[in-house]
Amino acid sequence: MTADNPTPHEPSRPGRIMSGEMAEQPDVLRRILDEGAPRIREIAGAIAERNPRFVLLTARGTSDNAALYAKYLIEVLLGKPAGLTSMSTTTAYGAEPDLTDCLVVTVSQSGGSPDLVASAKAARRAGAITLAVTNNADSPLAEVSEYHIDVLAGPEKALPATKTYTAELLSLYLFVEGLRGGDGAAAKGLPDLARAILERKDEVKELAQRYRFAQRLVITSRGYGYPTAREAALKLMETTYIPAGPFSGADLLHGPLAMVDNVSPVIAIVPDGKGGEALQPVLDRLRGRGADLVVIGQRDQVEAASAGFVLPSGVPEEVQPILEILPLQQLAYEVTVARGQDPDAPRALAKVTETH
Amino acid sequence: MTADNPTPHEPSRPGRIMSGEMAEQPDVLRRILDEGAPRIREIAGAIAERNPRFVLLTARGTSDNAALYAKYLIEVLLGKPAGLTSMSTTTAYGAEPDLTDCLVVTVSQSGGSPDLVASAKAARRAGAITLAVTNNADSPLAEVSEYHIDVLAGPEKALPATKTYTAELLSLYLFVEGLRGGDGAAAKGLPDLARAILERKDEVKELAQRYRFAQRLVITSRGYGYPTAREAALKLMETTYIPAGPFSGADLLHGPLAMVDNVSPVIAIVPDGKGGEALQPVLDRLRGRGADLVVIGQRDQVEAASAGFVLPSGVPEEVQPILEILPLQQLAYEVTVARGQDPDAPRALAKVTETH
Repeated sequence: MTADNPTPHEPSRPGRIMSGEMAEQPDVLRRILDEGAPRIREIAGAIAERNPRFVLLTARGTSDNAALYAKYLIEVLLGKPAGLTSMSTTTAYGAEPDLTDCLVVTVSQSGGSPDLVASAKAARRAGAITLAVTNNADSPLAEVSEYHIDVLAGPEKALPATKTYTAELLSLYLFVEGLRGGDGAAAKGLPDLARAILERKDEVKELAQRYRFAQRLVITSRGYGYPTAREAALKLMETTYIPAGPFSGADLLHGPLAMVDNVSPVIAIVPDGKGGEALQPVLDRLRGRGADLVVIGQRDQVEAASAGFVLPSGVPEEVQPILEILPLQQLAYEVTVARGQDPDAPRALAKVTETH
Repeated sequence: MTADNPTPHEPSRPGRIMSGEMAEQPDVLRRILDEGAPRIREIAGAIAERNPRFVLLTARGTSDNAALYAKYLIEVLLGKPAGLTSMSTTTAYGAEPDLTDCLVVTVSQSGGSPDLVASAKAARRAGAITLAVTNNADSPLAEVSEYHIDVLAGPEKALPATKTYTAELLSLYLFVEGLRGGDGAAAKGLPDLARAILERKDEVKELAQRYRFAQRLVITSRGYGYPTAREAALKLMETTYIPAGPFSGADLLHGPLAMVDNVSPVIAIVPDGKGGEALQPVLDRLRGRGADLVVIGQRDQVEAASAGFVLPSGVPEEVQPILEILPLQQLAYEVTVARGQDPDAPRALAKVTETH
């Protein structure tokens, strides 16, 4: 607010900040590819030389979904076993596992949450190679970690993280590519593709009408698309307040499928590739239950569903998550605005969540 | 049905099978301690000699929650890094990580799901020490794994797993104790304590009235109690069909808290120990949001909540999950019966879920 502003009490348009940050994503992806990639490759090279045997990933919230994406990359592309950290084993129970030969990657937008900092410190003491992936090079987390990757997303002010999520995904992809000596070529076209998707706002706005009165959502995918299902659920919960349960397709069949009926809205992220193939029997079962199935995926999948959003074809499966989440971020935004809430400032939340 | 049965079309009492299997749990726990423990100790000793560096756990559904419990035990009691497998990296993407020095534990009630069998086979080929934990010694999973622990729960016929869950928990506890040369003394009193809890059915029945018309549930805990939150949510979803979101307390603060308001039913499992202490700030935030908070935990915590179920005191925190889940299984049962559904046979499910 400046002295030039004559109406200081007029509320700004709800969601203005989130909307602006979503729109920045093509530029952020471009910046990472142009300016960030050489440094990421250098760090990956230095870590690859130390030949870590296992990779542990530590994060919370949106960054935890980025960490899960990295877990798939590490297992599939790199062929190394990986796990997500249960942080309380260190911060609450004082566990001190021997982490020799382990690479511990901590992912955090702010790099400020005390439990993440404590956990990274403990990992370093326990002999791990430590890497922080943050949007803040001056953060305590970057400080206590041996290596640091800056995801270069610029300041993020809306409470729901959007551009830092896709920036984390791309940075982690380039890092894993660097570890295996790949060139990250699959990511080259992403900024333009992201821009084209984000321009199709009207399609998402129409889709959002469907969820104006939804009481709950089931979101499913498999393989590389599963982190997208989790992040979409989180985004929808924190902005629209609709309870949204994310399930890997296989886990959905192990019990939760029972709660799906003909008034249950289901969103499926169908990867173009092996993840999508593995999801096919789940989609068939969901149709058999009469679920309202909305698909984010290829044209044939969307046409076989109740509705959906068509993603570009020909994108390598391992980088599809960087695009898949975009219409789902916009969906969270549009449903929230339609419900008269402000996506920029969900009730009860603060930007830097201090958990211990 | 036999020729002696004059009314073959009279439906049996809904939930009769699940109810009977829940009631067997004290005997099953006793059987594991008396008959199973020596064999589990022997297997653990043989595996400990091979000194695995890293533990991976593979499972689906209820068994996945038992696997998560084992992950806490391995990190906290054993001081080894552990991770849960993303099974599709092997079964869909054909990843072949180098698993030398890894112990891969596959947990499955039936030991029959093709993806678990394929995953265990692949792990063994990749150099891992493989252990199957199942309720069926003749299962394909037991067959393809180097070691096998039988959880001795006896045939389970209700679709919602109950006695196999607590049997898996206790077997995994004794296994981890065996790995570290412990005597498993913390488990000694569990059968009697379980019996005393299960006898307090009427208290749970009263609590169940609260959720007769619930549209959704949030279930939270931390540390050792987090697997209980996940299993309670699964049990409630598959029997009552109420969407139930399980959250670690810390993750709840990173976004989903926004959807909690004064008509949101929240169930908190508050461990008696460090997990409960770490959960305290989350309980305070939930109260601040006006949530209806039901606590499964110690008397003082229950008295500070809207309602709850008091657990016995003085039980070591690492075995509390074997007791905590009991009133929550019963709650799922009671709410389901109150809604006129049959807990034994949730719609859309089969006992052995074949995922690939």
